[in-house]
Amino acid sequence: MLVEIGVGGICGSDLHYFHNGGFGQVRLREPMVLGHEVAGRISAIGTGVSGLAEGQQVAVSPSRPCGDCSFCRLGQPNQCLNMRFYGSAMPFPHIQGAFRQFLAADASQCADATGLSPGEAAMAEPLAVCLHAVGKAGPLLGKTVLVTGCGPIGVMTVICARRAGAETVIATDISEFALRTASAAGADRTINVESDADGLAEFSGGKGKIDIAFECSGAESALGAAVGCLRPNGLLVQLGLGGDMTVPMMALTAKELRIHGSFRFHEEFFTAVKLMRRKLVELGPLVTATLPFHRATEAFELASDRSQSMKVQLEFTS
Amino acid sequence: MLVEIGVGGICGSDLHYFHNGGFGQVRLREPMVLGHEVAGRISAIGTGVSGLAEGQQVAVSPSRPCGDCSFCRLGQPNQCLNMRFYGSAMPFPHIQGAFRQFLAADASQCADATGLSPGEAAMAEPLAVCLHAVGKAGPLLGKTVLVTGCGPIGVMTVICARRAGAETVIATDISEFALRTASAAGADRTINVESDADGLAEFSGGKGKIDIAFECSGAESALGAAVGCLRPNGLLVQLGLGGDMTVPMMALTAKELRIHGSFRFHEEFFTAVKLMRRKLVELGPLVTATLPFHRATEAFELASDRSQSMKVQLEFTS
Amino acid sequence: MLVEIGVGGICGSDLHYFHNGGFGQVRLREPMVLGHEVAGRISAIGTGVSGLAEGQQVAVSPSRPCGDCSFCRLGQPNQCLNMRFYGSAMPFPHIQGAFRQFLAADASQCADATGLSPGEAAMAEPLAVCLHAVGKAGPLLGKTVLVTGCGPIGVMTVICARRAGAETVIATDISEFALRTASAAGADRTINVESDADGLAEFSGGKGKIDIAFECSGAESALGAAVGCLRPNGLLVQLGLGGDMTVPMMALTAKELRIHGSFRFHEEFFTAVKLMRRKLVELGPLVTATLPFHRATEAFELASDRSQSMKVQLEFTS
Amino acid sequence: MLVEIGVGGICGSDLHYFHNGGFGQVRLREPMVLGHEVAGRISAIGTGVSGLAEGQQVAVSPSRPCGDCSFCRLGQPNQCLNMRFYGSAMPFPHIQGAFRQFLAADASQCADATGLSPGEAAMAEPLAVCLHAVGKAGPLLGKTVLVTGCGPIGVMTVICARRAGAETVIATDISEFALRTASAAGADRTINVESDADGLAEFSGGKGKIDIAFECSGAESALGAAVGCLRPNGLLVQLGLGGDMTVPMMALTAKELRIHGSFRFHEEFFTAVKLMRRKLVELGPLVTATLPFHRATEAFELASDRSQSMKVQLEFTS
Repeated sequence: MLVEIGVGGICGSDLHYFHNGGFGQVRLREPMVLGHEVAGRISAIGTGVSGLAEGQQVAVSPSRPCGDCSFCRLGQPNQCLNMRFYGSAMPFPHIQGAFRQFLAADASQCADATGLSPGEAAMAEPLAVCLHAVGKAGPLLGKTVLVTGCGPIGVMTVICARRAGAETVIATDISEFALRTASAAGADRTINVESDADGLAEFSGGKGKIDIAFECSGAESALGAAVGCLRPNGLLVQLGLGGDMTVPMMALTAKELRIHGSFRFHEEFFTAVKLMRRKLVELGPLVTATLPFHRATEAFELASDRSQSMKVQLEFTS
Repeated sequence: MLVEIGVGGICGSDLHYFHNGGFGQVRLREPMVLGHEVAGRISAIGTGVSGLAEGQQVAVSPSRPCGDCSFCRLGQPNQCLNMRFYGSAMPFPHIQGAFRQFLAADASQCADATGLSPGEAAMAEPLAVCLHAVGKAGPLLGKTVLVTGCGPIGVMTVICARRAGAETVIATDISEFALRTASAAGADRTINVESDADGLAEFSGGKGKIDIAFECSGAESALGAAVGCLRPNGLLVQLGLGGDMTVPMMALTAKELRIHGSFRFHEEFFTAVKLMRRKLVELGPLVTATLPFHRATEAFELASDRSQSMKVQLEFTS
Repeated sequence: MLVEIGVGGICGSDLHYFHNGGFGQVRLREPMVLGHEVAGRISAIGTGVSGLAEGQQVAVSPSRPCGDCSFCRLGQPNQCLNMRFYGSAMPFPHIQGAFRQFLAADASQCADATGLSPGEAAMAEPLAVCLHAVGKAGPLLGKTVLVTGCGPIGVMTVICARRAGAETVIATDISEFALRTASAAGADRTINVESDADGLAEFSGGKGKIDIAFECSGAESALGAAVGCLRPNGLLVQLGLGGDMTVPMMALTAKELRIHGSFRFHEEFFTAVKLMRRKLVELGPLVTATLPFHRATEAFELASDRSQSMKVQLEFTS
Repeated sequence: MLVEIGVGGICGSDLHYFHNGGFGQVRLREPMVLGHEVAGRISAIGTGVSGLAEGQQVAVSPSRPCGDCSFCRLGQPNQCLNMRFYGSAMPFPHIQGAFRQFLAADASQCADATGLSPGEAAMAEPLAVCLHAVGKAGPLLGKTVLVTGCGPIGVMTVICARRAGAETVIATDISEFALRTASAAGADRTINVESDADGLAEFSGGKGKIDIAFECSGAESALGAAVGCLRPNGLLVQLGLGGDMTVPMMALTAKELRIHGSFRFHEEFFTAVKLMRRKLVELGPLVTATLPFHRATEAFELASDRSQSMKVQLEFTS
């Protein structure tokens, strides 16, 4: 498929590349186009494709596993040994990104986004990250859920937890703007763990009150606080990417807690688009700014300012 | 606690006792008060009770396990060997029911129902049955769900599946009134399997399109149809109580389907009340009639008419 | 790979084709070579193959999924929409079988069987069926296990359950020879449910004493008896292929039992060979006769006689 | 029951109390009798006890949950809020231990150990710890398992993994004596991670080769090494009690690993005794010395010497 890209969202990893040339051991070693949260319209269709038409609005999944390695064959495409995820410096040569006006994509990457605005459709990728994580958590119906870190991934996790029937959702961050956004997105309680250091105390009493925690900050202190709040046999899903972290293993062992890492997604991309099309999940309000692509530098600076930005998107149509 | 009962809902098992003197091998062998879906106000409190006050609105759980048998000790109180569930002829002497003006109950059975109408509070019991079943199904977020049988349990299962984030909910029955109620409660598709015998055909194509089925009718034909519609490794949760049923075991084996029985509930009763108080689940519209208890016979006849009744409740306050 | 077949085992489905021209709705519509339990030596190797050498002893997996359909991509290759399982009349044209002197197979089907006799290596296929089923049952360490039906699949399930640490294994059948074989293979208790109709009574008392049942007979009565013996929340894995069966759904629901179908296998084939090579599983004693392939008719008749045969194999080398 | 104690094993926590007056935040604040791995003979029986007789050999479980708190009611007795585990300084007043000649115990703590030597029977407690941990790991049949730390708990975990059908068991430690014991107990590979720092390299290649790791050392470096060796979606069960540990969270997240804490046991105590009585698990060789209780100090010193001791037991009969 040739896709005329309409909109692309700026992700935290894009910001890491932009500001620091990488994160952890992943470093840019050659010029690389950024971007992996994109949506657009089909401009041309190759032969043998059914179910898609020229002019159709699509969200484009950046997940491109090989389909042939041992992990793909085990049904774990997000662990593909030959993954070509857009805008990633993990392999070398790097995988060029999707912030461009025209993108050649495989039909299997394109989800019908009819009825969604380009901005909403471009939210499918981060939403898929959250759906993948929530899917690891078992049923949330009636549960008490903690989300640590209220960037776009954290706030969308709040939305997913709410959508999945959580009875109470508590969200933490150190940015008041982020917490207000989480609150507007459905969090019952928001706690600024910087200004209110004991804010989680009521949830750490007894052996802990939280059933499930989603760690979306990548901050060691958030992980430690979550361990303290989880009830025995509770689960922490780790989405936030950090480096080495000190974990209170004694509490984890004695309370028989579970930690489960969550990384990217695959089929959840299509679920994400369907949930938005069905209006079961609404993400429009999370887009705090949309700038034309020739103002990309300004957009990246804006996206880096957690005091006023949630998701910043670039517009590629002129 | 002495509870002044306000409202009691008539359940399918009450109707079985009323019309047939029992169901399956469970037969009435002595006079028995019916009723196990009740709510009221605290009239008097015993010593040593905290957290409850006179005059407080409460929903009363009919689940009264012994706390001491092998199943209670395994954390399976719904399998208690000495269960004293209100209005049940399973043991002998029978356990007398809760359709009465004053009921002495244990504090541990009473859920704070402040803010709920008595009629809503009395829905906690059947809602708990559905929450227990939905809890066996794993995450429903983004899933395609089939509910067979749209009596109160079926419709509340539709509501729970919707609340838990199902992407599509399909409901079947043979009563148009029941299907309209399911539709109003959130079902995306309703199919009258009597007048539209092939209505499920689109879901049985390929190897099946349904992720999870909740069988709420106790009808053999519904179970068989659900097996045909489930995708490989799909799950059927059986709530409906029937007798022996013929099951297409070849399809079940070849598609590696799973069946899981679901029976009553325990802690879900309290979750049910919390979800209603938080307005995360709204059941008021399911109450199709409320009659004073001295018109009980009329109420039972009305509750038996599936062409116009969903939940019929008795009022015990004069 | 070109494989010179050494030995091929006769399976129950081969017998169904031989005697009845099929089973259930699967019917022979054209001549079909039988056989899918084979092992031999590599006769010639194609280009690009590593890790295998001419003359090497291999077990050949009959499972040949397409690797490209929706189920393959989900990591469920045993549900492949284009499966070409040797000797199967499910698709048309039928998939020709492996009872032949030379077989061209994909390198990915060949498991290194160095150190195993050809007869043992040819047991990898039915062992894989059992490993697949046992893998659905969760940990067996310390559990009480019931196996109904003691043909080769049942007896190998006894062996797998024993190997996986079951504390007690009970086996049932109606053939004394089969039960003696099960006993020699490690069953603690064997019960002839024909001559000792109440033999399972001690396990059905209370709410049931069996943790996990493997139904390997495909007989309705065995399924019903197993439901009666399972403890609350117990699991029945259905391997036996039968048609429609009457199931006591009331007991299944009230005890919250679980049923899980198990069908064929995939990666378990390689695990099977490894476990035999490590001497962690020994299947040699189950081969009750080996006949040269030109006496195939005699071998099939012998394999059909449950009073004296467990596994009968054909020898293809002259 | 009045039990005349025959033998008591010295545990690592006993050594911590002996040498350091506690571990982590758990400190001795008053004199406390040690010991929680004991077995003996019934000396006198209270009224209302069935199934036990005077003179009978029993293993005594030190796990004494209240049966009434919220965790007991949830079926999580090892999390009991009022646990009275023998020889524990966690609560104050401390729970006095079982290293004594006569012990009054509840009948529900006593497992029939007929046929076991007192020394074997006294191994039921640490074996139960391992069974509890192995039960969290899912099926081990055919799996590749890593055990880090080969004290008594590590070696018994090796034995349990072997018993549960693991295909390959790799064990690490820094004591040659411990590794030799692990090897004799069934480990396929033993690696001295002090003298052979790269010994695990072959298992950390690719994305990792280990399916399941049991961390029994409480050492941060062992945890980090295990994370490096686990395949995507692999599981680490943490039994070793350490304090805060630095965990490579980036690898854990990217490989979607799972960590599950395991703490003590409950019903596994009875399973442990049954497995030993059935000779499915043999622990006798792990007892490296048995000393009369009046030489307790010498026994504690000996038990502290990892170059020559595995399990040291005290004899209480004179």
